[in-house]
Amino acid sequence: MKRRISFALLACALTASGIYAVSAQTAVSDGPTYAAGTSNLMRPADYREWIFVGSSIGLNYPPPGAPAGPQMFHNVFVNPTSYRSFLKTGKWPDKTVLILEMRGAGRETTANRDGKFETGLMAIEANVKDSRFPGGWGFFVFGDNDKSVAPLSGDAVKPCLDCHGAHTAVEMTFVQFYPTLLEVAKKLGTVKKEYTDP
Amino acid sequence: MKRRISFALLACALTASGIYAVSAQTAVSDGPTYAAGTSNLMRPADYREWIFVGSSIGLNYPPPGAPAGPQMFHNVFVNPTSYRSFLKTGKWPDKTVLILEMRGAGRETTANRDGKFETGLMAIEANVKDSRFPGGWGFFVFGDNDKSVAPLSGDAVKPCLDCHGAHTAVEMTFVQFYPTLLEVAKKLGTVKKEYTDP
Repeated sequence: MKRRISFALLACALTASGIYAVSAQTAVSDGPTYAAGTSNLMRPADYREWIFVGSSIGLNYPPPGAPAGPQMFHNVFVNPTSYRSFLKTGKWPDKTVLILEMRGAGRETTANRDGKFETGLMAIEANVKDSRFPGGWGFFVFGDNDKSVAPLSGDAVKPCLDCHGAHTAVEMTFVQFYPTLLEVAKKLGTVKKEYTDP
Repeated sequence: MKRRISFALLACALTASGIYAVSAQTAVSDGPTYAAGTSNLMRPADYREWIFVGSSIGLNYPPPGAPAGPQMFHNVFVNPTSYRSFLKTGKWPDKTVLILEMRGAGRETTANRDGKFETGLMAIEANVKDSRFPGGWGFFVFGDNDKSVAPLSGDAVKPCLDCHGAHTAVEMTFVQFYPTLLEVAKKLGTVKKEYTDP
C-alpha cells in the first residue's frame, strides 16, 4: 500500500485532463471504461497506441530538503479523441484519459557515454476527466495485476488535487511538459498566464 | 551543413527499420512518400500521431575520450502499419518509417528537484526501410523548412550503416531502446543473441 500511495503522489505531479462538449457527431470510443455499476476504471489495454504527448526523467516532487526522487522515465499518453479535441480548442473534453507510464532508466556502460534509455515498466496511473467524480477528476493507480481500480479518495487524492490545482499550465493538467500541446494552448489562449512567454 | 551532418551521426545512433512481405490485404497508407520521380522523402506531417516506441536522454556516441554529448531528449515514432506488423513478426516490414525527434531538455529550478522534461523541437530525422535504397535503408535529416530531403549518401551515410550494423538488437534497428518492442522480439526470437537475457 505504501508503494501505491507513493506512486499516487508521483501521478499527481504528472498526469492530467479537462472540460467537455458532447457532440452528436463525435463517437468517443476511446474514453474511460468502468467496471459494471462502479466508477472503477478498467485498465486501458491499448494505451501504447494512443497519442504520446511527452516524456520526462526524474520529474517528481520531494519535499524541500529531501534528496531528489528516483530517476524514472515518465511517458504520458492521451486517448486520440481527446487529443484531437485539444488541438482544436486548447482544452480537454470530458471523458479524457491521460495515462502516466513509469519506466526504469537504463544507462550506457561505455566510459564517456551518459545516455539513459527506457527499460521495464514500473507503474501505470491514470487521470480521468469525468463529471462523475467530485471536482470532475478521477485519479487511479494500477497495481501490476489490476484489471480495474477504484479512484483514489480522501487523504490519498488530496495531494493530487492540491498539486494539479497549483502547478499546471492548462486547466488541471501539466501541459507545460507536453511541448506540442503547449504550443497549441498558447495559440488558443488557454495557458495560465504564469506559463505564457514573458 | 556541419549541423546537418552532426545530426546525421546522432540519427545513426538511434533510428531504425526492416524486412517486408507485401500483403494484398494490407493497405500501407502510412509508409514513406517520396517527391515525384525521386527518392527524396516527404516530411511526414502526422508522425506525432504515429506509434511512440521509446524515449531517451543524452544517448549519443562521442568518440572515446571526448566529452559526453548533448542532453537532448530523443523520441522515436513508427508508422502504425509497420508497428502492427512488428508485433506479429518481431521484424520490420519494407516501407517502415522510423522518425527520430530531438527535443531540448528543460530543467526544474527548485533546489532539490533535478527532473528534466521535453521542450522545443531541435531536429527531425527519418530512417526508412525500402528496397529502393542501397542495402535496403535510407537515412534522412530534415532541416527546419525542408518539405522533402534526399537520402544521405557516400561519407555521410557510412557511419549510419556502420553503427546500425554493429550495435542494434533487431535487424539494423535499436530495439534495445524500445522496451515494449524488445519484449515482443524476445518472445518471437528475432533479437540478436548479445541482446537476449543471460
